[in-house]
Amino acid sequence: MSTRESTAARPPGRPRSARVDEAIVDAVLDLIAEGTTVEALSMDAVAARAGVGKATVYRRWANKEALVSDAVVALKGDVPTPRGESVRADLIALLTLVGRANNRAGQIMPCLMPEIKRNPALYQRYMDWMEKRREVIRDVLRRGVGTGELDPDLDIELALAALTGPMTLQSAFRWHPHLPKERLAERLVDMMLAGIAGPAAPAAPGPATA
Amino acid sequence: MSTRESTAARPPGRPRSARVDEAIVDAVLDLIAEGTTVEALSMDAVAARAGVGKATVYRRWANKEALVSDAVVALKGDVPTPRGESVRADLIALLTLVGRANNRAGQIMPCLMPEIKRNPALYQRYMDWMEKRREVIRDVLRRGVGTGELDPDLDIELALAALTGPMTLQSAFRWHPHLPKERLAERLVDMMLAGIAGPAAPAAPGPATA
Repeated sequence: MSTRESTAARPPGRPRSARVDEAIVDAVLDLIAEGTTVEALSMDAVAARAGVGKATVYRRWANKEALVSDAVVALKGDVPTPRGESVRADLIALLTLVGRANNRAGQIMPCLMPEIKRNPALYQRYMDWMEKRREVIRDVLRRGVGTGELDPDLDIELALAALTGPMTLQSAFRWHPHLPKERLAERLVDMMLAGIAGPAAPAAPGPATA
Repeated sequence: MSTRESTAARPPGRPRSARVDEAIVDAVLDLIAEGTTVEALSMDAVAARAGVGKATVYRRWANKEALVSDAVVALKGDVPTPRGESVRADLIALLTLVGRANNRAGQIMPCLMPEIKRNPALYQRYMDWMEKRREVIRDVLRRGVGTGELDPDLDIELALAALTGPMTLQSAFRWHPHLPKERLAERLVDMMLAGIAGPAAPAAPGPATA
């Protein structure tokens, strides 16, 4: 966890200690983006890249694991808040954030995933963050079921996976090179709402058993 | 590329040289699954794990890059062939393969993705394989548009991404811990066909411009 000084009266802009925190976190992310593995990452290199002394880094983070963990959360950004308009509009806004073309995240996350999977504490922190964002999207889906904007029998968990999966793969891996970026979230939400069946589709099967 | 001996009359079962190829490829995948990075992987270690001499490995693969490249393709398996039944049945069968619970692939692919992204030749080989499988799925989608089983205005590329994305994330990363594995492909295809809109959904917007 980073330690931020709290002051009664702050000068305009972000306080200096927050700017130092950001410089250090940015240094971590830059080094990883350039190919440094988490294993090889040293607090010395981070301090040098951030332009601060090593003691400044250690004053804020007790060890490399805590620093990398904060860097991952910083990379992901804040958990978004839906505006509470139509479910369609909220889903488009949320999925746009999931798939936000963030070049640094796109470059770094594939490098970090193996590390995240190997490190239980880091994995838990990452998953906690993901789970918070998922819960925001689930809430919108539940609201849609309540208002009748969505199918009353909607499988919330499956809809969540179907909506976020393609956005995640595009932002983290540019998975589908032929998929245009323009209005991707909007097109996906509209396809999901309307379905892809055509006029000659057989009647939908009833809810399957087992 | 591996070199396979061709013989006019083969004994029953796979020929011995193919079995040696498999043992070597398996050794590569095992070592990676156990945490060896591609960088640290040595032909010596591969030979030792496979129980063959180093010369046997080098007779089949000129270098580590070629061997790892073949191992990745072996891990992915054959490109599937749809049975040509209903589009719904074909999509379910193909997506079941995409999401096949392959523990080894699930363990290895996250470790390999950064390596694949760093190595242009390996990335190309991997993407060529992915593209072949995607083309099989696109063909089924195009067929469905032709028969009227699917929306005549279907965005093939977007539908491909929406159908495969959640399956890929589940098989490679177990992305959604709360999503049950049972009939996942079937449930996803049926949700995509029918759509998720409810009785109070506003009319679908027309095709957006720009």
